[in-house]
Amino acid sequence: MPVLVMKFGGTSVANIDRIRRAAKRVGVEVAKGYDVIVIVSAMSGKTNELVGWVNEISPLHDAREYDAVVSSGENVTAGLMALVLQEMEIPARSWQGWQVPLLTNSAHSAARIEEIPTANISAKFGEGMRVAVVAGFQGISPEGRITTLGRGGSDTTAVAFAAAFGAERCDIYTDVDGVYTTDPRISAKARKLDRIAFEEMLELASLGAKVLQTRSVELAMRYNVRLRVLSSFEEQSDEAGTLVCAEEDIMESNVVSGIAYSREEAKMTLVSVADRPGIAAAIFGPLAEAGVNVDMIIQNIAEQGRTDMTFSCPTDQVKRAEKALSEAKAAGHINYHDLIADTDVAKVSAVGIGMRSQSGVAAKMFKTLSDEGINIKVIATSEIKISVLIDRKYMELAVQALHDAFGLDKAA
Amino acid sequence: MPVLVMKFGGTSVANIDRIRRAAKRVGVEVAKGYDVIVIVSAMSGKTNELVGWVNEISPLHDAREYDAVVSSGENVTAGLMALVLQEMEIPARSWQGWQVPLLTNSAHSAARIEEIPTANISAKFGEGMRVAVVAGFQGISPEGRITTLGRGGSDTTAVAFAAAFGAERCDIYTDVDGVYTTDPRISAKARKLDRIAFEEMLELASLGAKVLQTRSVELAMRYNVRLRVLSSFEEQSDEAGTLVCAEEDIMESNVVSGIAYSREEAKMTLVSVADRPGIAAAIFGPLAEAGVNVDMIIQNIAEQGRTDMTFSCPTDQVKRAEKALSEAKAAGHINYHDLIADTDVAKVSAVGIGMRSQSGVAAKMFKTLSDEGINIKVIATSEIKISVLIDRKYMELAVQALHDAFGLDKAA
Repeated sequence: MPVLVMKFGGTSVANIDRIRRAAKRVGVEVAKGYDVIVIVSAMSGKTNELVGWVNEISPLHDAREYDAVVSSGENVTAGLMALVLQEMEIPARSWQGWQVPLLTNSAHSAARIEEIPTANISAKFGEGMRVAVVAGFQGISPEGRITTLGRGGSDTTAVAFAAAFGAERCDIYTDVDGVYTTDPRISAKARKLDRIAFEEMLELASLGAKVLQTRSVELAMRYNVRLRVLSSFEEQSDEAGTLVCAEEDIMESNVVSGIAYSREEAKMTLVSVADRPGIAAAIFGPLAEAGVNVDMIIQNIAEQGRTDMTFSCPTDQVKRAEKALSEAKAAGHINYHDLIADTDVAKVSAVGIGMRSQSGVAAKMFKTLSDEGINIKVIATSEIKISVLIDRKYMELAVQALHDAFGLDKAA
Repeated sequence: MPVLVMKFGGTSVANIDRIRRAAKRVGVEVAKGYDVIVIVSAMSGKTNELVGWVNEISPLHDAREYDAVVSSGENVTAGLMALVLQEMEIPARSWQGWQVPLLTNSAHSAARIEEIPTANISAKFGEGMRVAVVAGFQGISPEGRITTLGRGGSDTTAVAFAAAFGAERCDIYTDVDGVYTTDPRISAKARKLDRIAFEEMLELASLGAKVLQTRSVELAMRYNVRLRVLSSFEEQSDEAGTLVCAEEDIMESNVVSGIAYSREEAKMTLVSVADRPGIAAAIFGPLAEAGVNVDMIIQNIAEQGRTDMTFSCPTDQVKRAEKALSEAKAAGHINYHDLIADTDVAKVSAVGIGMRSQSGVAAKMFKTLSDEGINIKVIATSEIKISVLIDRKYMELAVQALHDAFGLDKAA
């Protein structure tokens, strides 16, 4: 029988009633003849509670223990979902990551999936089981310890299962009914997109549009998994939500498809660094080793052999970055006068595959911000996006102004 | 290095502060030179929350999924405890049941431990780890699924580890400071015992004195594990709490050591059963198969070839018992006119190894209850205990009266 993967996020399984509602959706697909693999997140709030406890104990914790703790929320939901399906007389059972086994590397808290052996679950489908409920977000390391895939890792789990089982589609059920041109909470003019290209979704995901985890989109693109984002709170047709697909499957689109933002970005500046060859490597090497995800980087013009180096990274990695840099300084590898962390910034980005063939997008973006009196602190660009770091207080204004400027309230 | 097992119950790890306090106790033993195996329960309230969800979905649930869900609470505590110990710079790591692996049979929700291979944990002790934090209450079946050992199973886990590792002692930290002659909430005259024999503790545990799980005491007796019950809320010396030990290690004791009670006992009566050879087997066979723990049994005098059969079982197994019996009736294996479940009863018991050598204990017990006007519904006795089923409303009165009658407020 054809396989369908369905993933339910935290708000879609927040309590028993919602798990029942999600199970009903699963039942609809089972009735159509699919063998279904359901990937579940923890009930909303549960993972935050667990993370809160770990951080209360130690901000710089052993990631192996962190993973052992925070993976428990998904296990609970998987068992509950299996029980609800059984009550509906649908043959179902739960799998925890180590039972599949979902094999990952040893990069705890941000592990990468190495392999998903399909034998165990396929054998059960062969015996008449119709739904495998899998705890998302987790796997097992070569050392036999529990790993997690990072926040939002359940999306990645879902896409990886869809790829491993050759699923017809991977439906991501969430609390929004699709991908929007921007966050509707910030701009009332935000419009749902019927389709979006993998590349665009990738930029939007990595820029803080929290609909899908970046890696899940990367995986979907690599294995050409048809990925659909839709709401678990509405009756759904086969055409609902937003389909994330290959560029060639999209007929027409605006130059800019969406405006994304992120509040969880901090700006860090190393003041008065010796401007010598190799200095960038000496700074960003230790940061990479410490697991700091550096995003934007700018280097000031040097004066008298010294320069300022500015970069951005997620706010919750600031402590780790400071530690790595001060250790590198203590070890004599780098030298700087001061290290300033500014967490009062936000990143706003315009994304669109249309940028490849049309110039002037950056100019229009900078002029729009300038007209609103918003100062740009850092700029970064790629082939299909332009990002700026600005004062956090201007974030909403910037998003609204850019959404208007690029005409995103109107379909292409 | 000598091994010590320390078990912390739910109230002893109810929040991060309490986990820190427990970890401090562990630190004291590590400083003495012990390699410590810590067994943890779920934070108090967590297991009940999980059980509540499962029961909300289905009262007659798949026990395999139940186990997968409810075992998660212990995993959380194990990771948190390991993190706290690491913060104290004590080398520690957590183990979930399947990681040890703690091997059990497939009797889900009431699994029995088959084996605890010591290789993994011993190897880590050899590498300098000082504390292995193990999630209690759980194991893994031959089919690779998660099992749980039944409520209170963390005590059993602790004793089993103590036996497997040849531990010097197994300390059970709880919210009471030892074993009492009766529940201090019911009788203000209750007195803490310094020592109690395995056999007595066994009867007390099975009778509802919730200090230790029955099977943990059985195991301790079989492997002669020195078992100590003490409070995690007080500063402790090596002599604190109550030592559960072999009879020969106790110098003097009262004839009766303690008065136990249980509210979670239901009385079930099969009215007008055919009185023929094999009828008891026909009734209690299906109950055993359904996992109903029948405790007391009485059979009325037969009249005209029919009799009434009364038995007691835990209140939460009443539904299961009714189902098993009505199925046996439908299948024609047994025949009865009516099945009456009375959950408004309580069991009160007097326990003491001194009963073996002294007669008249039963008579004294019956007279004491009679003097208080309390009617006895069912009686059961063993070599060292006498139990009676009475109306629940008289339970406290009965406990107090018996505690006085046997002079338990005074040491032997």
